[in-house]
Amino acid sequence: MKLATLRTVGGGTTAALAMAADSYLALPAIDVGALLAQPEWRTIVEKAAAATHQDVISGADADFGPLLPRAGKVICCGLNYGDHIQELGRELPEYPTLFAKYADTLVGASDAVEVQGSVRVDWEAELAVVVGSELFRADDDQARAAIAGYTVANDVSMRDWQSRTLQWFQGKAFDRTTPVGPVLLTADEARDDFEVRGYVNGELMQQGNTSTLVFGPAQLLSYISQFTMLRPGDLVLTGTPGGVGMGMRPPRFLSDGDVLITEIDGIGRLENRFRIHAPVIANA
Amino acid sequence: MKLATLRTVGGGTTAALAMAADSYLALPAIDVGALLAQPEWRTIVEKAAAATHQDVISGADADFGPLLPRAGKVICCGLNYGDHIQELGRELPEYPTLFAKYADTLVGASDAVEVQGSVRVDWEAELAVVVGSELFRADDDQARAAIAGYTVANDVSMRDWQSRTLQWFQGKAFDRTTPVGPVLLTADEARDDFEVRGYVNGELMQQGNTSTLVFGPAQLLSYISQFTMLRPGDLVLTGTPGGVGMGMRPPRFLSDGDVLITEIDGIGRLENRFRIHAPVIANA
Repeated sequence: MKLATLRTVGGGTTAALAMAADSYLALPAIDVGALLAQPEWRTIVEKAAAATHQDVISGADADFGPLLPRAGKVICCGLNYGDHIQELGRELPEYPTLFAKYADTLVGASDAVEVQGSVRVDWEAELAVVVGSELFRADDDQARAAIAGYTVANDVSMRDWQSRTLQWFQGKAFDRTTPVGPVLLTADEARDDFEVRGYVNGELMQQGNTSTLVFGPAQLLSYISQFTMLRPGDLVLTGTPGGVGMGMRPPRFLSDGDVLITEIDGIGRLENRFRIHAPVIANA
Repeated sequence: MKLATLRTVGGGTTAALAMAADSYLALPAIDVGALLAQPEWRTIVEKAAAATHQDVISGADADFGPLLPRAGKVICCGLNYGDHIQELGRELPEYPTLFAKYADTLVGASDAVEVQGSVRVDWEAELAVVVGSELFRADDDQARAAIAGYTVANDVSMRDWQSRTLQWFQGKAFDRTTPVGPVLLTADEARDDFEVRGYVNGELMQQGNTSTLVFGPAQLLSYISQFTMLRPGDLVLTGTPGGVGMGMRPPRFLSDGDVLITEIDGIGRLENRFRIHAPVIANA
């Protein structure tokens, strides 16, 4: 099944189940995170799908909020695709490179993204893993069993801020700049590997297959769980394939008005127009 | 005034006001973060202090929980004391080095700290700033006005994990390893500068004065607020002075049973015994 967090007319949000014919069934939870926090969430979805009275939202009216607007942890892995690592001139790592961001960074699948104060706004198309149950000091098998499913994310990065210091956090933590969604594809329906693609104004920039990840989804969750508890609705971004703007010669960055598309076959597509409020300076 | 988060007999917590004669007055909020989230929190404290029926906890019975157990953001600054920067062989920075951790890392002022999987557990005594009101794209003056107060923290770091990759997060994010408290000293009663000290088994290891911070509390909050919203109860750790174990020749790390004391004159003292469950190997 596919689950979404949709904005409602009253200014709130609701978790929703994608149904046939491009429509969504509202579920009794304010977002996908609140749904996953209930251990019997599958039963809740099944009951809603079988109910006589259904609150159905047409696909045309669906306004996607960030999939997990209140995720407790959003942990990202850098340098995880062989080709991207080579693009940056680095060697294959023994351990995953991890950094943290907060849920305030997240935006919806079709939202405009406003950036103020950066002139090196770069893209990072990624598969994101959604945690489905508590996980602490877990092995790979336990971690795999705790995956609720997968979604699409773009770890949009302000390279000027990211490179100001050794720690990437400040370039990765701008509020409302990390598109995520449109849906969670549950693990039981997921293929083994995903094709991840990123486009700028229709031009293909990034393409990678998650079969080439140095650390796969279960490995990442297991590794992280050695030091911190993962909980339902937490999000782990698995890293980006080659083709980021910073790696180009000369480097390329997003300009005001550009449209960034991030898509994964079988899950869905993010399409975000960028508003970049910053003095225009040369990219290189 | 001084505010604390105390554990209650029923397994919960309560915000509390430090009173004369080593006692605490329970306040109508489950922790200091929940108290600060109410804009009229000073009035709430005053009313409780003036009430006829008071729930008073003796200092001997006070069991300090982490001051802000549900802090939305815990943002740390590294390399912020001139002497510590020189100890690490680095130059004075133009921008603050920032990294994020989650509230799960926090423990109370007298709690035992259990570490599993690290053999290079190091200390970082720090002044921490507690945010008192929402702050976004603020200048230094606005940031200063938004400081609720100050507390003591120790950014205990697993150097083996921290140095596995370029990003420090995994060495800083072990659950329940960052002592914080015992109290919040409100900004109106705070001196301009604080003396920060760290001891291991009674031996003075670190000593620094916050007057030597490269980026002071208000500057840090202003800088962070340029990219992310800070909210009441968020915590910003201001960095550690020289004298960490990693910087010694040979390096020194905490052993099972060691007691780490972190203190700041005028605020209070953390005293945490370490339980380190890991194969004992040579420190160097």
